[in-house]
Amino acid sequence: MTKISSYTSHAKAFASGEDSPVTFLEASLEAIGKREPVVKAFKAMAIERARKEAAESKARWKRGEPLSPIDGMPVGIKDILETQDMPTGQGSPIWEGFATRRDSASVQALREAGALILGKTATTEFASRAQFAETTNPFDPTRTPGGSSSGSCAAVGAGFVPVALGTQVVGSTLRPASYCGVVGYKPSIGGINRGGSYDYLSHSCTGVVATTLDDVWLTTKALVTRTGGDPGFQGVTGPDTPPPSRRPKTVVVLKTDGWSRATKGARDALASACGKLEAAGVNIVTSDGNTDLEAMDAAIREISALSDVILGWEGRWPLGSYARTDAEKLHPLTRDRVEKNRSLTQDDYIAALNFRAALRRRYASLLESADAVITLAATGAAPAGLESTGDPGFNIPASVLGVPALSLPVLSDGHMPLGLQLMGRVDDDADLFAIAGWTMELFEA
Amino acid sequence: MTKISSYTSHAKAFASGEDSPVTFLEASLEAIGKREPVVKAFKAMAIERARKEAAESKARWKRGEPLSPIDGMPVGIKDILETQDMPTGQGSPIWEGFATRRDSASVQALREAGALILGKTATTEFASRAQFAETTNPFDPTRTPGGSSSGSCAAVGAGFVPVALGTQVVGSTLRPASYCGVVGYKPSIGGINRGGSYDYLSHSCTGVVATTLDDVWLTTKALVTRTGGDPGFQGVTGPDTPPPSRRPKTVVVLKTDGWSRATKGARDALASACGKLEAAGVNIVTSDGNTDLEAMDAAIREISALSDVILGWEGRWPLGSYARTDAEKLHPLTRDRVEKNRSLTQDDYIAALNFRAALRRRYASLLESADAVITLAATGAAPAGLESTGDPGFNIPASVLGVPALSLPVLSDGHMPLGLQLMGRVDDDADLFAIAGWTMELFEA
Repeated sequence: MTKISSYTSHAKAFASGEDSPVTFLEASLEAIGKREPVVKAFKAMAIERARKEAAESKARWKRGEPLSPIDGMPVGIKDILETQDMPTGQGSPIWEGFATRRDSASVQALREAGALILGKTATTEFASRAQFAETTNPFDPTRTPGGSSSGSCAAVGAGFVPVALGTQVVGSTLRPASYCGVVGYKPSIGGINRGGSYDYLSHSCTGVVATTLDDVWLTTKALVTRTGGDPGFQGVTGPDTPPPSRRPKTVVVLKTDGWSRATKGARDALASACGKLEAAGVNIVTSDGNTDLEAMDAAIREISALSDVILGWEGRWPLGSYARTDAEKLHPLTRDRVEKNRSLTQDDYIAALNFRAALRRRYASLLESADAVITLAATGAAPAGLESTGDPGFNIPASVLGVPALSLPVLSDGHMPLGLQLMGRVDDDADLFAIAGWTMELFEA
Repeated sequence: MTKISSYTSHAKAFASGEDSPVTFLEASLEAIGKREPVVKAFKAMAIERARKEAAESKARWKRGEPLSPIDGMPVGIKDILETQDMPTGQGSPIWEGFATRRDSASVQALREAGALILGKTATTEFASRAQFAETTNPFDPTRTPGGSSSGSCAAVGAGFVPVALGTQVVGSTLRPASYCGVVGYKPSIGGINRGGSYDYLSHSCTGVVATTLDDVWLTTKALVTRTGGDPGFQGVTGPDTPPPSRRPKTVVVLKTDGWSRATKGARDALASACGKLEAAGVNIVTSDGNTDLEAMDAAIREISALSDVILGWEGRWPLGSYARTDAEKLHPLTRDRVEKNRSLTQDDYIAALNFRAALRRRYASLLESADAVITLAATGAAPAGLESTGDPGFNIPASVLGVPALSLPVLSDGHMPLGLQLMGRVDDDADLFAIAGWTMELFEA
């Protein structure tokens, strides 16, 4: 499959005039022209505006005055983030074709950084696990791209755009990134400003997917230095350029709730990855015979039920509003959720928040003696069919714990891609990138 | 001035059929018909829907099956909170006439509780201190009602509705409540779900204004038991019925930044209120000769500059989005803010967050040996003219500290109302209501 390459690696060629954002955009549009009818990643596009802005960007690069390292970069935006010039349909017939009068915080930052908002990418209904998106997997159109950031991951995986924005509250960025063979990043809680993202749950995050780790980092920096993290949170911090690679001393393997449902191919891939790290001098800690870690992993396996209570209570709004007026336009699974959520109480929620806080403290103490956690990003290859977006078992822990996580496209399950997941320490996303950089180099060697 | 009375005190008469939500609504509409042309509290109304729902509510009360203590209560909603059936104009020409496809969290909760969403109330542009609202003070049409919750406080003060929702990030609920002679409540940070409120700043809150403390409490409970607090926050907790009055042992007087600009009438009113509390057996602690408290009050006086950095950074979005496309539709003060905010950095913001956290710890330790803080809710009576919404000097501390605060309409400055402000402990709003209940009784005696 032809892929467009990293965007930010072109900086020199853009400056010298050897290459330009105009050429880059046209290659992107050519890839889209060829394969979009099958992949169906986009819900809306702004091609003429992108062409006009690419020409302006080209001139800035030639003058030596790019607005940022991502000046001129075409980006796909998950269709739950507001864009002033394109509707924000949220994967729901209720919102289809509906545009507001502003850009979301991340889109505002991208525009200020000179990036091209090329299109809106398909999402499942309200970024949930209910399926409306018709997007297919760029590696195999009979399989799901995963979700809910379906279009963003498919668009990057198909080589349509080098970078796209997604969101994750359960596993909506890392799982589809794993299925589509791209780098997926969910920052520390509050790491990227969610303003104007129709995504209000307390541990959800805006995420970044890209073909390379450097593009993810530089895009993230372009966002946080312009519109910050969520209000009240520091936002992702770290160097202006990608953090230098570093070999971790110790990584902990967490099996999580996903392990019991992982394919043999996925289990073997993780075992082999651990072997590779060990051979390169990394101390690998597993729960076998380690009672502390086994207890932690057992607690982590309960996290799915905890997440259901938290998201159930928080999800009463806005789902309750739609249930009053547009029930027939909701996916049946969503209608079921609304009913189920009615039985929850404020006390249930407070208890769940306290449990979540205790788990976060426990995870923090685990990472006092280790550099990162390693696990799978999905239970295996993208499942066949488009009805389900796959199993988020491996993704819930980082979401609930509020810690940064990356899916690295270095494994495979059969002929399909599979992501290796790294989880780091809250508010030290830069260190996780340093470790991930080293890991990518190890696998590419 | 005729005022409609408390809503929730009618429960028995509604149940017996002596009185009904239909009668209550018609009295409300009559008051509006008489004085709204001068007060100008509303931006939009849904009268026919309210009449239909009042009839349904009347039937529920008669059957002994009200949905809540506020079933059938007409409510005004500040025009930055989404309502599906009325536009949400945000006091800005950019959003004028713009309606979304859902209700905000608090409006959803009110509807579920049977309340009538009677209208949208005027706000200054984006709930800021820039003035677009034309609302006048119900006690004197040549004066401002205060802002930004201008229409909500004027509507309650004029007797149009018993309860209205406002918001506060600096002083937007307590100051207009003081000027309009109503009870104003800003909850603990995260206390009421802000979903669908166009108000994203890290210490802003949805607030409740009403003619009585009981109506405020019962409305708040109707909200939080249905749609909770902000995601990740417990939300206001406490008994289903208004907390029983209690006399505080010790209250601390904080002068705040507002003191230097308070009128003589306001200063005298606070001194006399303190004397009244002291005579009733309350221990009043002032900073005179108390070096710890003087240091705290000095720190509190710096809080306005701190708030400017926090709100400046957080306000880059969405103001930056409007500045790109609709600059000419922004208030000149807002355009200035956008420019000023450009000089702030993520590091400035992180330093400000740390300073805010330190102040919050300091306040918490102050309230280990006292029950509440007492101060003014405004520097004096509502100022003449509609150009300015008044001085928020007394309101910023509770906002930045994230603690619950009430303005009680028990003082006056000349012939105009003035609020006595009580501030409590974070996440113990119920205790503040207990103290406020006792204080109201003391002043009404």
